[in-house]
Amino acid sequence: MRALPPAHPFDDDKLKEECGVFGVTGVTDAANFVALGMHALQHRGQEAGGIVSHDPAHGFNSARRFGYVRDNFTKASLMETLPGSLSIGHVRYSTAGSKGNTQIRDVQPFFGEFSAGGAAIAHNGNITNAEALRRELIERGSIFQSSSDSECIIHLMARSLQRQVPERMKDALRRVEGAFSIVAMTRTKLIGVRDPLGVRPLVLGRIGEDGWALSSETCALDIIGAEFVREIEPGEMVVIENGEVASHRPFQPARPRFCIFEHVYFSRPDSILGGRSVYETRRQIGVELAREAPVDADIVCPVPDSGTPAAIGYSQESGIPYAMGIIRNQYMGRTFIEPTEQIRNMGVRLKLNVNRALIRGKRVILVDDSVVRGTTSRKIKEMILDAGAKEVHFRIASPPTSWPCFYGVDTPQREKLLAATMTEDEMCSHLGVDSLRFITLDGLYRAVGEANGRDPHAPQYCDACFSGEYPVEPADQIEKGFALKAAE
Amino acid sequence: MRALPPAHPFDDDKLKEECGVFGVTGVTDAANFVALGMHALQHRGQEAGGIVSHDPAHGFNSARRFGYVRDNFTKASLMETLPGSLSIGHVRYSTAGSKGNTQIRDVQPFFGEFSAGGAAIAHNGNITNAEALRRELIERGSIFQSSSDSECIIHLMARSLQRQVPERMKDALRRVEGAFSIVAMTRTKLIGVRDPLGVRPLVLGRIGEDGWALSSETCALDIIGAEFVREIEPGEMVVIENGEVASHRPFQPARPRFCIFEHVYFSRPDSILGGRSVYETRRQIGVELAREAPVDADIVCPVPDSGTPAAIGYSQESGIPYAMGIIRNQYMGRTFIEPTEQIRNMGVRLKLNVNRALIRGKRVILVDDSVVRGTTSRKIKEMILDAGAKEVHFRIASPPTSWPCFYGVDTPQREKLLAATMTEDEMCSHLGVDSLRFITLDGLYRAVGEANGRDPHAPQYCDACFSGEYPVEPADQIEKGFALKAAE
Amino acid sequence: MRALPPAHPFDDDKLKEECGVFGVTGVTDAANFVALGMHALQHRGQEAGGIVSHDPAHGFNSARRFGYVRDNFTKASLMETLPGSLSIGHVRYSTAGSKGNTQIRDVQPFFGEFSAGGAAIAHNGNITNAEALRRELIERGSIFQSSSDSECIIHLMARSLQRQVPERMKDALRRVEGAFSIVAMTRTKLIGVRDPLGVRPLVLGRIGEDGWALSSETCALDIIGAEFVREIEPGEMVVIENGEVASHRPFQPARPRFCIFEHVYFSRPDSILGGRSVYETRRQIGVELAREAPVDADIVCPVPDSGTPAAIGYSQESGIPYAMGIIRNQYMGRTFIEPTEQIRNMGVRLKLNVNRALIRGKRVILVDDSVVRGTTSRKIKEMILDAGAKEVHFRIASPPTSWPCFYGVDTPQREKLLAATMTEDEMCSHLGVDSLRFITLDGLYRAVGEANGRDPHAPQYCDACFSGEYPVEPADQIEKGFALKAAE
Amino acid sequence: MRALPPAHPFDDDKLKEECGVFGVTGVTDAANFVALGMHALQHRGQEAGGIVSHDPAHGFNSARRFGYVRDNFTKASLMETLPGSLSIGHVRYSTAGSKGNTQIRDVQPFFGEFSAGGAAIAHNGNITNAEALRRELIERGSIFQSSSDSECIIHLMARSLQRQVPERMKDALRRVEGAFSIVAMTRTKLIGVRDPLGVRPLVLGRIGEDGWALSSETCALDIIGAEFVREIEPGEMVVIENGEVASHRPFQPARPRFCIFEHVYFSRPDSILGGRSVYETRRQIGVELAREAPVDADIVCPVPDSGTPAAIGYSQESGIPYAMGIIRNQYMGRTFIEPTEQIRNMGVRLKLNVNRALIRGKRVILVDDSVVRGTTSRKIKEMILDAGAKEVHFRIASPPTSWPCFYGVDTPQREKLLAATMTEDEMCSHLGVDSLRFITLDGLYRAVGEANGRDPHAPQYCDACFSGEYPVEPADQIEKGFALKAAE
Repeated sequence: MRALPPAHPFDDDKLKEECGVFGVTGVTDAANFVALGMHALQHRGQEAGGIVSHDPAHGFNSARRFGYVRDNFTKASLMETLPGSLSIGHVRYSTAGSKGNTQIRDVQPFFGEFSAGGAAIAHNGNITNAEALRRELIERGSIFQSSSDSECIIHLMARSLQRQVPERMKDALRRVEGAFSIVAMTRTKLIGVRDPLGVRPLVLGRIGEDGWALSSETCALDIIGAEFVREIEPGEMVVIENGEVASHRPFQPARPRFCIFEHVYFSRPDSILGGRSVYETRRQIGVELAREAPVDADIVCPVPDSGTPAAIGYSQESGIPYAMGIIRNQYMGRTFIEPTEQIRNMGVRLKLNVNRALIRGKRVILVDDSVVRGTTSRKIKEMILDAGAKEVHFRIASPPTSWPCFYGVDTPQREKLLAATMTEDEMCSHLGVDSLRFITLDGLYRAVGEANGRDPHAPQYCDACFSGEYPVEPADQIEKGFALKAAE
Repeated sequence: MRALPPAHPFDDDKLKEECGVFGVTGVTDAANFVALGMHALQHRGQEAGGIVSHDPAHGFNSARRFGYVRDNFTKASLMETLPGSLSIGHVRYSTAGSKGNTQIRDVQPFFGEFSAGGAAIAHNGNITNAEALRRELIERGSIFQSSSDSECIIHLMARSLQRQVPERMKDALRRVEGAFSIVAMTRTKLIGVRDPLGVRPLVLGRIGEDGWALSSETCALDIIGAEFVREIEPGEMVVIENGEVASHRPFQPARPRFCIFEHVYFSRPDSILGGRSVYETRRQIGVELAREAPVDADIVCPVPDSGTPAAIGYSQESGIPYAMGIIRNQYMGRTFIEPTEQIRNMGVRLKLNVNRALIRGKRVILVDDSVVRGTTSRKIKEMILDAGAKEVHFRIASPPTSWPCFYGVDTPQREKLLAATMTEDEMCSHLGVDSLRFITLDGLYRAVGEANGRDPHAPQYCDACFSGEYPVEPADQIEKGFALKAAE
Repeated sequence: MRALPPAHPFDDDKLKEECGVFGVTGVTDAANFVALGMHALQHRGQEAGGIVSHDPAHGFNSARRFGYVRDNFTKASLMETLPGSLSIGHVRYSTAGSKGNTQIRDVQPFFGEFSAGGAAIAHNGNITNAEALRRELIERGSIFQSSSDSECIIHLMARSLQRQVPERMKDALRRVEGAFSIVAMTRTKLIGVRDPLGVRPLVLGRIGEDGWALSSETCALDIIGAEFVREIEPGEMVVIENGEVASHRPFQPARPRFCIFEHVYFSRPDSILGGRSVYETRRQIGVELAREAPVDADIVCPVPDSGTPAAIGYSQESGIPYAMGIIRNQYMGRTFIEPTEQIRNMGVRLKLNVNRALIRGKRVILVDDSVVRGTTSRKIKEMILDAGAKEVHFRIASPPTSWPCFYGVDTPQREKLLAATMTEDEMCSHLGVDSLRFITLDGLYRAVGEANGRDPHAPQYCDACFSGEYPVEPADQIEKGFALKAAE
Repeated sequence: MRALPPAHPFDDDKLKEECGVFGVTGVTDAANFVALGMHALQHRGQEAGGIVSHDPAHGFNSARRFGYVRDNFTKASLMETLPGSLSIGHVRYSTAGSKGNTQIRDVQPFFGEFSAGGAAIAHNGNITNAEALRRELIERGSIFQSSSDSECIIHLMARSLQRQVPERMKDALRRVEGAFSIVAMTRTKLIGVRDPLGVRPLVLGRIGEDGWALSSETCALDIIGAEFVREIEPGEMVVIENGEVASHRPFQPARPRFCIFEHVYFSRPDSILGGRSVYETRRQIGVELAREAPVDADIVCPVPDSGTPAAIGYSQESGIPYAMGIIRNQYMGRTFIEPTEQIRNMGVRLKLNVNRALIRGKRVILVDDSVVRGTTSRKIKEMILDAGAKEVHFRIASPPTSWPCFYGVDTPQREKLLAATMTEDEMCSHLGVDSLRFITLDGLYRAVGEANGRDPHAPQYCDACFSGEYPVEPADQIEKGFALKAAE
């Protein structure tokens, strides 16, 4: 069954990360560790997952499945087919490729047998010149098996004139544009790479005496009891073999531009980014928001669960009591049959319920992480008013999302983004709330630790979804007619 | 598949309610409403669920399934087999009957064809003289199909000399001892009953012009857009037919003894009990706890999710900041294959992760709803200390649980209850924490609204799990050797 | 999955037996033997099957499943739940009960817990006064769980004033009218019973030192390596305990009337009925048919597979060569999607294909076992003519089927039987063949070994489907309006 | 589910064909026709099947599944994903590739996107230089997705310097050695090819006005109502587009060497090979065998089902009556749990049962199609003797199988072939039968229509499995150490 309950209550109105990658070497039955790591990264991709392992007796082994890690990679009968002390895994939420109609062949890791031995790769991010590369490779006789942009990498590697896999990867990745954090493996090596801007995260951990792990986030190191060592640096390739980590720099140096939305929403609150708990950063966003956009009210309520840390921060800074005005159903599902008699907002009711006795007669501040299409914000506002709230004030823990992401995030087309077509005031009256305020871009930069806010001449992060300033030109998109922001 | 991820992260160390019941009449395709209601009551029973409906063309229809409501009663192909404007449903977590080895025939509602027409019943609670009744009925030639205590009721009804179903029910229930909230139906009637003490909840709601609903909790009225009318009273039977509600009083009057643990843990925080939001009662427990058991610390963290409201209350009363020190994995599962190399507390890691960067160096107050066996409390303490906490103080939102429940809750045997064999100090050193305090029984009574606390001569609630004072003698248990508390 | 390919290529145009029963005692892991026996009896019921076993440690165990025995009762995980040295099983093709909409609760064996111990029963046949018994039992307070006529027996047993199960069974079966071959078990006894007329078969076999088996047919003794001992006699009850077989005679003596259609079609050709191979009887039917209804032709072809033995006999008696003019697809299935462009007789093509190169230009005798609705006979005729046959002559190995069976066979309503509304000549022109001949009733009796044919005053067999003479009055049917044959 | 009941009762002791291919163009919803054709070819491959279709709106569509055609390609939800008027399909029994451990990526048709458009191919046969080709292609940068020898073809096509698919195919197939009958498609063309020797069959049929079909056997034309036009000739390529069939001759002319075992066993008896019914050829083998190897006996029995036509021929030529001494269970399955008490030959009993009452005291001639390992022949002999046969004479409808096939048939290693290590007399005493005779190679040639038998200087068929004379050198095998027959 591919139809799964959504990860977040309003998944259909959220930006959706994309993918998570994980790899481990130097441990017995490495695939069991990889399954745990993927489980901890499940929020980065719920559609499907795959694991590749290698052991000398059986060579490379792989398993790819639709659905949650917990439902597939927990079965002894499957895990026994994945022996070895070296393994990588991938959880996927389709970004490029056949969206909504994924076939199992689109599920990573991808594997290629080369003349001097094979390799498997797992990719988080998006290649912005994938279509041009694909045309070129087909012209030369490569046969693509998937609709994934990531498959280009393995074909480029297969055609490299180099013999060794790390050299083949360097060759291949120098042709690739866009965002990538990659975990790869050969028979004996575990390899990690981040693109020159370091748009997507990738961290290194240590486990036991000789073991090493690579992961999209630190929370997946915790689950396997690995110690967080450091982030892989933008533009760095690490090659781990025989318990040793070698660092390479295959690309031209560039100014890093890490994705700021990882701080806002994508990463798990218990992960560490830039040396700080993501939870704490989000709480700090709430603090900044309370300073920038105060309002007199009775209670501060999060839209669960992603708005919770910012709501706590807002409450602490403002002194207005924090309260759980909206309760999330733990057994979500969105496919119930609509009763023929009208139930207003049934879809929302399946996921959330208003704490009616608490809300009645109150002035309520609702803190949410972002507004994408705005559809669920409207429904929540109605539920709150139906329950008898006196006022509803929305406070949003990110700036208006007005541009699509082309670096590994599933965003609607630009015209579907509420903030692409409306001002803040227009959105407020569209949503029908008493007030609506977004944190400013500078406020967000301050919350992530940039005391002076955003440097407009050399922004410290990729914030294209807010600013329209794309650090890597989205070549395939431009070819298909996407209009960049006009120079000011 | 019967193997399901648990509802709460430490389900194996919680008292487990039991069952939820729901019924609706006077709406088109009533079973769709029942499915929604059962989904909202899923926390009361995750093992299995069943729906019965009736329509004139097809008679009684039923479907019983293992697993979550969202995975079964959302399929058009199934729901189409449940037509009609009158329907009842049941979600089950086995209490009596073949625990852990439930067969589909144990899943309610139970149905019986009587000489003047059939009836279906769904039961929340536990019959304390079920075994004696069963022996008697078998002796007379009844054939039992399940191992459930609830099946006695339908056989007693079948043998009643009365003709009408409500009269048969009264006849039957007068023979039954214990706790019961029942939703039943005939071809035309929706029936609700509570036992004389009203141990388990049952509420009445109104939907549309002529529709009525019965539900274990108000949160299930919300999901179908029904208006909460009132609680069914202890000892009351309501018979709803043709849009009219008739109230009967089949039993000898008695002093009500509602289950106080519904306030502490079982009911959903967005339900209303005794006219007040359960969330607010739990927050108030935290307030009481902060008054009774203050401690100097840096942060107050809930054990998610059930400790959250009390932690908020504790923080508000004490002024110590509230923080999410423990993050719950939304994609739980407990069957991952243990890596051969030791991961300490892997089971816990699958469900929870400590927010390490936040906890390090802090004095932490952890607020949990209850301590049953104490096994998970130990593990959480270790995780918190591993992450570098300086001190760990447990505050528990219920008194020590030292007696089993025989009224529809799945409790371990008495000797497995930590509080049955240790004093508070012994538990503190057993758990290895810096301090451990439970709310007092009087404090809990104050939090639920009894300003003068518990009346020791006529307790306002059933609190047998804390006090050992059983309002209904557990006859089957005593026959099997259970020792009541010695009179003082 | 309930959707199964049919057992015989034209299952939808055949009379369908009904059920098969099997039991074994005195062997280790008896349920494994029962599964094998049920597999050998699968032709008697493909819809579902069930096994009950007993061992002292676990008591009674049961498993009931839809689908083939080979797909369910071959899994170690299931069979391990059925321990013990005593076990019975049942394969089912619904006759009474909710046809086409069977629920798992309708699948036998049925089990009842009585005051002095439980029993399980498996029934082949049909109770002709089941509806009256059911009404009476419900009036007294019995609760029926299934729609099966067989459930009456277990309720009658539960209400018997006797203590011992064999005595309860006698009590119950004396109230029952109709056809029954029953295999039952208690904790220690294996019990077999046939109705006074012995309409349905039941045989006794010996396995190993102390083991005994009961089976609908001898072919199921062969598969477990048991030795065929004898048939259970009409009106006999055998009770097997501690390796001893005791014979009882609970009923009034009656003249036996075994079902003659078991010889024609239901039983497997390798079973032994009345001391003779069923195959040999069917071959003899072909011999009789060649004598009664000769015709000049080039080849004799069976309609596979059930017409094969009679076709061999016809060929041997007539001297016309036997040939496989119709080839059966071994991978049947009847649910392919019809191509939009017309394929004539696609349903038939899925199951059978004409051996075109063989048939072309030939005069063909087709031998089939029976004509029920005549729908497939027409299609086969068309396929044969399409392939270029010069003449088509049908020879049928049973007399015209013109009355429904009420003793455990699934027959269409009388008006759907071709022979109920047409003479032999009318059928011939309806089917559009060059000639059509059925064996006479006397010819059939001769083939089964009655040298003088049928005794019209005291027929040796039940042949109600051909003669309309019902040896047991079908009370429920008459109440519902069925008209018996007028006395001549 | 991959575990399927075997196609033939002794599949584990039979040579196993390999694959079946089918394609159709010029009909609405072509994939529905392909599913039917594959169903008719199911005996050529039961492990898995795949269909590719093309329509202008959706491009190429494909579905590949493990299991029977009837269980997969009958679902509307799947077939709706395969629209278009042009479609090909493949049923597979692994020959090369990962035997017994097939992954879905090994299931054909294979698809490749080339620079001027894509193509899908389905291959029956085996490429004898596949491993060398694979090494060469990987060296150049091709990435193989399967372990199938057939994948070489699509990579060779991708690298061809030609633009058009038919030209790419010619280019590719000129590099390929071995046996191949291929059905392929582009967006608009249906293509069929046979290798120069024409080892595997391929036929052309016509359907409706403009429709054409390609099939391994004629029986699959019958099922869709197509008219058999002619065989594709050895070395011929047909390209069908816009209702026109163009014939190409891409290879050097060669003397045809069709597989003689297709006549003996692989092809369905209702197919037409070389202008004659396969059934009739097999009956004629029985006639030849009766002439070559007569014996005095009471009955001639086939080993069902494949020995049936030869047994009929033997009976007709010898005058000894034909009889069904062995009955096949229609509901095969081979995974029942062995009862702990010994059942001799249980595996055989699941599939076959001796007609004991018929066999007792008789001298029996058993006719089987071939002897491979001899394991089941022994078991059948024992069953026959257990049933009381006086004598057992085996007559085999093919010469001794003493060499493996490398052209698309799954044969055991040479040393496992009984006839590779024993003379006919040794086999007779090994099997423990009263006599054992194989048809001679000349007798077989006469039966297939070569009145003068085999031409030893220029054999008319490929008979390598009997003669050890391989018409195409098995290069990969020789490299792996296979020893060709020494020149005489």
